[in-house]
Amino acid sequence: MLVDGKHYRTIWADEEKRLFVIDQTVLPHEFRVVQLHTVADVCHAISAMVVRGAGLIGATAGYGMWLAAEQAPQNRVFGDWMKECAAALVATRPTASNLAWAVERQMRVLASLGPDASREAAQALLKAEAGRIADEDAQACRAIGEHGKALLTEISRKKGGKTVHVLTHCNAGWLAFVDYGSALSPIYAAFDSGVDVHVWVDETRPRNQGASLTAWELGRHGLDHHIIVDNAGGHLMQHGMVDLVITGADRVTRCGDAANKIGTYLKALAAADNGVPFYVALPSSTFDFSLCDGVRDIPIEERNGEEVRRIQGLGGNGRLESVLLCPESSPAGNWAFDVTPARLITGLITERGICSASEKGILGLYPEHASSCEEGKPA
Amino acid sequence: MLVDGKHYRTIWADEEKRLFVIDQTVLPHEFRVVQLHTVADVCHAISAMVVRGAGLIGATAGYGMWLAAEQAPQNRVFGDWMKECAAALVATRPTASNLAWAVERQMRVLASLGPDASREAAQALLKAEAGRIADEDAQACRAIGEHGKALLTEISRKKGGKTVHVLTHCNAGWLAFVDYGSALSPIYAAFDSGVDVHVWVDETRPRNQGASLTAWELGRHGLDHHIIVDNAGGHLMQHGMVDLVITGADRVTRCGDAANKIGTYLKALAAADNGVPFYVALPSSTFDFSLCDGVRDIPIEERNGEEVRRIQGLGGNGRLESVLLCPESSPAGNWAFDVTPARLITGLITERGICSASEKGILGLYPEHASSCEEGKPA
Repeated sequence: MLVDGKHYRTIWADEEKRLFVIDQTVLPHEFRVVQLHTVADVCHAISAMVVRGAGLIGATAGYGMWLAAEQAPQNRVFGDWMKECAAALVATRPTASNLAWAVERQMRVLASLGPDASREAAQALLKAEAGRIADEDAQACRAIGEHGKALLTEISRKKGGKTVHVLTHCNAGWLAFVDYGSALSPIYAAFDSGVDVHVWVDETRPRNQGASLTAWELGRHGLDHHIIVDNAGGHLMQHGMVDLVITGADRVTRCGDAANKIGTYLKALAAADNGVPFYVALPSSTFDFSLCDGVRDIPIEERNGEEVRRIQGLGGNGRLESVLLCPESSPAGNWAFDVTPARLITGLITERGICSASEKGILGLYPEHASSCEEGKPA
Repeated sequence: MLVDGKHYRTIWADEEKRLFVIDQTVLPHEFRVVQLHTVADVCHAISAMVVRGAGLIGATAGYGMWLAAEQAPQNRVFGDWMKECAAALVATRPTASNLAWAVERQMRVLASLGPDASREAAQALLKAEAGRIADEDAQACRAIGEHGKALLTEISRKKGGKTVHVLTHCNAGWLAFVDYGSALSPIYAAFDSGVDVHVWVDETRPRNQGASLTAWELGRHGLDHHIIVDNAGGHLMQHGMVDLVITGADRVTRCGDAANKIGTYLKALAAADNGVPFYVALPSSTFDFSLCDGVRDIPIEERNGEEVRRIQGLGGNGRLESVLLCPESSPAGNWAFDVTPARLITGLITERGICSASEKGILGLYPEHASSCEEGKPA
């Protein structure tokens, strides 16, 4: 992704052991790069959504484990400290699959060193592995784009080259990953290869990642788009104004149930009711092969009701302002995700290709996980 | 409805021929009564949503026709002027059924006078009829409350007196009518008779009538409630946290298709998917007996995209502020309503009782309209 002519990823470490991220709480009104100095900074950045999105949360946690090793107090047993930091990182967002996945991967790397390795060896290894997690995320997202592009190309062909209208919810673009994105990657790939694409951008209350992040990304890439309220998608689908829905995911079970930003389920219902294809795009790091029934078993994060009661935007004075939207005395409930049952999902777009949202489809692409799942029984 | 101990309706005329309304664009942060001086004021109040809601739009248009008669220019043919004013009023909001209904009712009253009647006679008759429209609206809403109360009482009984959780979308409370409301009237009636009720209030983007108006009303009445984003209802229904959905309507066809605030259709889909009863409450003035297929034939109002791009709330300085939510260069689409097909509606709550959302059910309650509808054929 180019910002003002310069290539960026959403997270990077430099040679001086400094970790940088793009602050997503001030976009689209300000493009600000911030340094995360400590593992506590990393935990706060994830929970306060300075960084967010399936892949980016994972990559950030990977780097967080490296920072933890760099800053382990001399008076603490290294292994104990790292376990504590791992637990603190995993606790920041309970629904995101990539988070635990990246932290566990770093813990395995650490374990591979053996008990007598130096702290310096651990630091170097964790930094290299964090870099690999980030690189693999970007590569997987690029492959998702190539596989998903075919869906848009085919619709374009059937429509005789007329505009393909894609609806997306939340932000599953390059800002949600290290680069490229999941749901937006096929859209970028199709657009770059000449397909005429228009995107309906769900604003995605309460944090408005659609209006603030997806719209900003698409605009930078030159993609035609309209922001709509989350309420609008059903009406558009009833009237043939949506050819395809693509969303990302925060956790997908081995049976194909997909946790994603709250409201995704409602769009999947509307898509099913109107015969509109509904795809979920994800890298393999987002699968949770230990679960089958997502509605029952995926934990859903509850966040502070103030995120619903107040909203931040650009005020008339050119400064970011937070305004109260409701009576001071009215409380709000704030669930961050919902689960879309596999039966409503047309297919999953992964870095290995497209499959049905079913245990058979998923294990067909990821046969190495078949042994860890007892067929037909939830783990 | 009591506000600070004083009984209010949402619209009233006094003995000095002055028309007053509650300004709904500044609630819940400020309670402001404004005078509408001219028919142009009335048109602006409806289109800018100073007044909104099915019944209140109708009542306001009724009074608007009276003001038009009071202020007819001496150099204009009275009948021509009144026709022009009627057309201007009807054009303010294309989806609302009550609007055309009230204006046509006033035009019939005017026609009943005959060509030789004085302007003064017309003025007196139109004022009296506007008052009757308002009175009937309040009475119908009160009756809707009594009929709908039975639904909540029955759920409460089945749950052994435990809290009944009702979800509602937009504002169909007393602020949307002259008094009592449609969707909220059964909730108030049940609460007043001792049923333990809790309301999930959809904030209802883009104009946030749920967060700003419904939450305010419910709070004034002492009703337990939580504001939720419009995205949340599906998740709540998946997890058994909603016993009943009740919404209002802006136009319902004789076959039971219901136009209501954008996003209602998505909640109806979720209710059907989870076996949650979904009711639409409306007075007879909201029926459009001339239509059957609502998705195809009800015109859907498109409003300015700035309503999506910006939002108003209470700033830190205690003043109402509008903030920009998206990139300055991103456009927005803004459809105000969607249509929920009758197949997704459990029943209609009217002032004459509850019926199925079907031509048979509706004409069973309103047999006087049977002759004007050719059975089984859209008009």
